[in-house]
Amino acid sequence: LVGRKDMFIGFLKNAWKLGVDDPRKVMHGLKVGLALALVSLFYYTRPLYDGVGGAAMWAIMTVVVVFEYTVGGCLYKGFNRATATSTAGAIALGVHWVAHKSGKQFEPVILSGSVFLLASAATFSRFVPTIKTKFDYGITIFILTYSLVAVSGYRVDALLQMAQQRVSTISIGIFICLCVCIMIRPVWAGQELHLLITRNMDKLAASLEGCIEEYLEEDSGTEKEKKSQKSQGYKAVLNSKASEESQANLARWEPRHGRFGFRHPWSEYLKVGVAMRYTAYCLEALNGCINSDIQAANSVKKCLSDECKKLGTQCAMVLKELSNSIKEMAQSSRLELLVCDMNLAVQDLQDALRSLPSQLQKEALQAAQVQKTSISSATITSVKNENIVTMPLMEVLPVITMASLLIEISVRIEGIVDAVESLAD
Amino acid sequence: LVGRKDMFIGFLKNAWKLGVDDPRKVMHGLKVGLALALVSLFYYTRPLYDGVGGAAMWAIMTVVVVFEYTVGGCLYKGFNRATATSTAGAIALGVHWVAHKSGKQFEPVILSGSVFLLASAATFSRFVPTIKTKFDYGITIFILTYSLVAVSGYRVDALLQMAQQRVSTISIGIFICLCVCIMIRPVWAGQELHLLITRNMDKLAASLEGCIEEYLEEDSGTEKEKKSQKSQGYKAVLNSKASEESQANLARWEPRHGRFGFRHPWSEYLKVGVAMRYTAYCLEALNGCINSDIQAANSVKKCLSDECKKLGTQCAMVLKELSNSIKEMAQSSRLELLVCDMNLAVQDLQDALRSLPSQLQKEALQAAQVQKTSISSATITSVKNENIVTMPLMEVLPVITMASLLIEISVRIEGIVDAVESLAD
Repeated sequence: LVGRKDMFIGFLKNAWKLGVDDPRKVMHGLKVGLALALVSLFYYTRPLYDGVGGAAMWAIMTVVVVFEYTVGGCLYKGFNRATATSTAGAIALGVHWVAHKSGKQFEPVILSGSVFLLASAATFSRFVPTIKTKFDYGITIFILTYSLVAVSGYRVDALLQMAQQRVSTISIGIFICLCVCIMIRPVWAGQELHLLITRNMDKLAASLEGCIEEYLEEDSGTEKEKKSQKSQGYKAVLNSKASEESQANLARWEPRHGRFGFRHPWSEYLKVGVAMRYTAYCLEALNGCINSDIQAANSVKKCLSDECKKLGTQCAMVLKELSNSIKEMAQSSRLELLVCDMNLAVQDLQDALRSLPSQLQKEALQAAQVQKTSISSATITSVKNENIVTMPLMEVLPVITMASLLIEISVRIEGIVDAVESLAD
Repeated sequence: LVGRKDMFIGFLKNAWKLGVDDPRKVMHGLKVGLALALVSLFYYTRPLYDGVGGAAMWAIMTVVVVFEYTVGGCLYKGFNRATATSTAGAIALGVHWVAHKSGKQFEPVILSGSVFLLASAATFSRFVPTIKTKFDYGITIFILTYSLVAVSGYRVDALLQMAQQRVSTISIGIFICLCVCIMIRPVWAGQELHLLITRNMDKLAASLEGCIEEYLEEDSGTEKEKKSQKSQGYKAVLNSKASEESQANLARWEPRHGRFGFRHPWSEYLKVGVAMRYTAYCLEALNGCINSDIQAANSVKKCLSDECKKLGTQCAMVLKELSNSIKEMAQSSRLELLVCDMNLAVQDLQDALRSLPSQLQKEALQAAQVQKTSISSATITSVKNENIVTMPLMEVLPVITMASLLIEISVRIEGIVDAVESLAD
């Protein structure tokens, strides 16, 4: 019992935190409550009111099922429900009429048979990707409405009257839903997508810088932990594929709002998302190398430290500029310059890599020179040769890998730049 | 009009291909049709039959909404629908009774108020992740049922009778659904998950081998294209997070089937999936390096070619053994040996990396020796020195990066081994 109580308290705390973190979620709950209360009051005060079996039921059902978190979701479901109900109703009336004309004997066969055929075909069509993304909910409603009307024992003229009533009730339900959803603090799927992309871009920039700093600098405990947390931001990019796609799908249904037009190029946002994930994969590998068992000597790290940091900073600057450019929905004048700087930083890093062996050798020779006084000149040459021959590649390996991945990341960032540019067009 | 016709034909071709590729999808469509036809015939032949508004409606609605592709989905929705309907009905009856006792004046206020409060709280609770994964559909049904009962104008005793009828109808609907779903070629979410994981593991192994071969060997066009296609298999691993999670959620509802018990450790499969994605990120970075602009000289490639290939093959063998071990649900006796071999291959590669500079130098010296006859001895030493000092790091870079990523991949594969072992326990 105590365990149950603890679990319940934990659940409440969890829910409270959720609400405090994002008050819009609480607001959504209240909006659904309001829409339902409105629709119930509407039907409560009507003289035509006739209980659960009647019209009120369909309005309530519509509100419960159509009301979604985002305006796009609401419109998508409302549109699907309205069109699917009317199409299925019309087809069902036709089939009903034919079945009625063919006599008592064939009526159940024709009706059940048509239900079987249409439901099978409609269910199968849900596996087609384009149908799935745009009309999944509509198909459910289509099957439901068709089955209900086809199987009903009413005559066609009674059905017509009922259909009229049903359509008006569903319209009222959808209308109340949309009013509450759009009027009171609307959450637009398009804007959410826009924010998600820019937020992820900022996280990517921060975690790229964080990763490199974490690797190249030796910090004390708390400082390091803070940076480590910052450098994990790319994981959000890796995991946001599903939400990006669903938001882009819903955003298509939304009318003009804020700075977004009706036919805003939402699919371009998806391409930016793909390019960002592509970069994040590489960053994940970089992070893996950083936390690997094989660690480079600090002296080796120092040789490339400046160039790596510079490239990391330049990459992050490009990402931040891209994020700003998306935020302000304007082409950035600085972007081209920043990309040039990034490419220069790549060049510098490549040059540093080219001169790395000779630099390491110099250091080795200096170390040998220090020992010169104590050993004979014959030994020196052998030490010298040994140093030359066995350049400590294993010690250099992690740094070289990191530099190489950084260069690859900069190439992929150019892919993001292209995607953002085609979004701007 | 011609465009429309082409689009329609394209759609049909698409759908046909979908059906041929996976006949189970067609089967699912037919099963839904059958369940609906059964339920409609059942109610058609009953003397109690009373049209759309009555009992038949709820049975049909239940079948349309509860029938899912997998048995787990069906059970999840059936259970949610049954419990949510009964809980909400019971609560609504209680509130209804209280409202009725408090007089005509307060009745609508209490009822609409309670609808508002409960709907708000229930909608908000859907944002809590645990509720979302287990009871999302139940919450919808809860709100729907509560609103319908609370708002209905019936007296409590009439409601009780109605509730009884409703429960029996919904039970019949769920029963028919489950019968059709389980009896006729059932699709188990658990088995799907099991297959998905092993299939992805095989793809990962194949694409790891493919990547390395593609890089190290120089093939002619068609051969190369074939390998390139094979090496793209890791992308399936990167993109299967969502389906793994939803299948694991649904698999929890499934009873014993085939070799899977009721409490099969489905969450362990998810961990294997995470470890596999972790490896796939690295493989994606490796693939990026392979297709990068900076390419290593073939002579350099040859130096590490054997060791890289060997490590790649060993890694792929471990993955294939893991996949077999999951397929057969038995701990593999060879696994430990294969992991040892993989680690030995890592050692070999590291040794090869260590001796790479001296080997390259030897080659350079040999090249210089060839020129010896034509140039004076003074020049030789300078050539020699130059070769020694400027070891061509930029040419070696891609190969070193690849080797380093391969070593990282082998470390991550050990993570998969651990995950599979804890699944086996």
